[in-house]
Amino acid sequence: MAGFHVHSVLVTGSNRGIGLELIKHFIGKPNPPEVIFATCRDPEGTRAQELKNLAAQHPNVVILQLDTTDPGSIKAAAKKAEAHLGGSGLNLLINNAGIVSPSTLESATSEDMLSVYNTNVVGPLLVTQAFLHLLKKAAQGSNQKGMSCSKAANVNISSVLGSTEKTPETFFVPVVSYRCSKAALNMLTKCQSMGYKDAGILCTALHPGWVKTELGRLAGRGPMGGGDLTVDESVSGIMKVLCNLSEEHHGILVTWEGNTLPW
Amino acid sequence: MAGFHVHSVLVTGSNRGIGLELIKHFIGKPNPPEVIFATCRDPEGTRAQELKNLAAQHPNVVILQLDTTDPGSIKAAAKKAEAHLGGSGLNLLINNAGIVSPSTLESATSEDMLSVYNTNVVGPLLVTQAFLHLLKKAAQGSNQKGMSCSKAANVNISSVLGSTEKTPETFFVPVVSYRCSKAALNMLTKCQSMGYKDAGILCTALHPGWVKTELGRLAGRGPMGGGDLTVDESVSGIMKVLCNLSEEHHGILVTWEGNTLPW
Repeated sequence: MAGFHVHSVLVTGSNRGIGLELIKHFIGKPNPPEVIFATCRDPEGTRAQELKNLAAQHPNVVILQLDTTDPGSIKAAAKKAEAHLGGSGLNLLINNAGIVSPSTLESATSEDMLSVYNTNVVGPLLVTQAFLHLLKKAAQGSNQKGMSCSKAANVNISSVLGSTEKTPETFFVPVVSYRCSKAALNMLTKCQSMGYKDAGILCTALHPGWVKTELGRLAGRGPMGGGDLTVDESVSGIMKVLCNLSEEHHGILVTWEGNTLPW
Repeated sequence: MAGFHVHSVLVTGSNRGIGLELIKHFIGKPNPPEVIFATCRDPEGTRAQELKNLAAQHPNVVILQLDTTDPGSIKAAAKKAEAHLGGSGLNLLINNAGIVSPSTLESATSEDMLSVYNTNVVGPLLVTQAFLHLLKKAAQGSNQKGMSCSKAANVNISSVLGSTEKTPETFFVPVVSYRCSKAALNMLTKCQSMGYKDAGILCTALHPGWVKTELGRLAGRGPMGGGDLTVDESVSGIMKVLCNLSEEHHGILVTWEGNTLPW
């Protein structure tokens, strides 16, 4: 892990939950990134206060306004990031921003389905589109062989709940709109792995475990240990996984413990 | 096949392509259904003329206005169908209506992603919600053992392009928004198979082959024989598959030739 150095990283939805914890862990690395872009919808809102405090203490943390459902704000954030990087590329893009809402086959509505899909699938698609040239620049500017997060990578935070194969084991969690969105995000990740392979950009979907967040509360304590993982435990695992990601993880879904999940 | 009798069937998007052909094949069966609900967005439009001609000749064909992106029209169609069935249930619901548009990782837009998802995923969800009580009634009123299309079934027309596992083989077809929607539809099908199992409703996703339709034209002639299947050949296969569907096909994705596809 000591040899794992990411020059620049961007995390969406970084004012709370897993996103905020990722920022903290990147800051706390023995060799932290030179640039940590922390994006959130409303940097001036009260829910971004902890992130703002972190940025005040750590000059390598750069907060960018980015609403993943607003194409204009995504493009504006990409321009600011490019200017800040001053000719360098972006090594690691983590599409973390996501939403979850309770929904069953009976209660799911058109509005909920579209809203969750917009944030969880369309968002990551548009964010990667906007930052792609910076990821490509990082890959081109690297002398590292193979694929890695320290060279150029696009990591989509997905979920085991997006694994159609695993659904019989997880169906007790009433989040149909979320499941459909994460299955689609897994497909998007696979497409990105096909489309960006030649550019040397590692593309992986990641299941963060069932963390004590909004989703964890919906899941309750289930046979898969739903919701009893702390955010710190999850992100500690994710950081190890990011450190070890390579070609063999290109276009697959891995857990916070590094295990492969089926689609 | 002779023993395969469906009392009532409903096909969405039945004014053209695979939907229209399904109506024709059901009409042409030695023992056709007593009621064939053929739904389309605009029964009065010129694109529904062939369907209207069929209905004029075959009194068992009942055309219903149904726009899968309009919850109100779905509910209205379900009320009309219920009244027409006069106390009987609906045996077979085929969610066939779908759209496809060319989109790559670079060109996909928010509007396209949401529009395709709305028709291809939210539509089937809402249609099945609205007709569920009629499917349940058919299952309850049947003395057949096990699961079958002649008892009670919900079949979602999906695609191999929604198979994340198969993406490396099919990536040459530039339809990212469609792929994501069909991966989500496969997930929805799996959820429906979990949720409706106890009610005895068979739930299956079906890949119709690469037919000479809009999608087939986008696919071109590829290594998977893209676009060179006639609609009649595809639907002939689908009719055989529907006839043979049973518990073993519950919650899986099968092709028009009856083969299982991975998620």
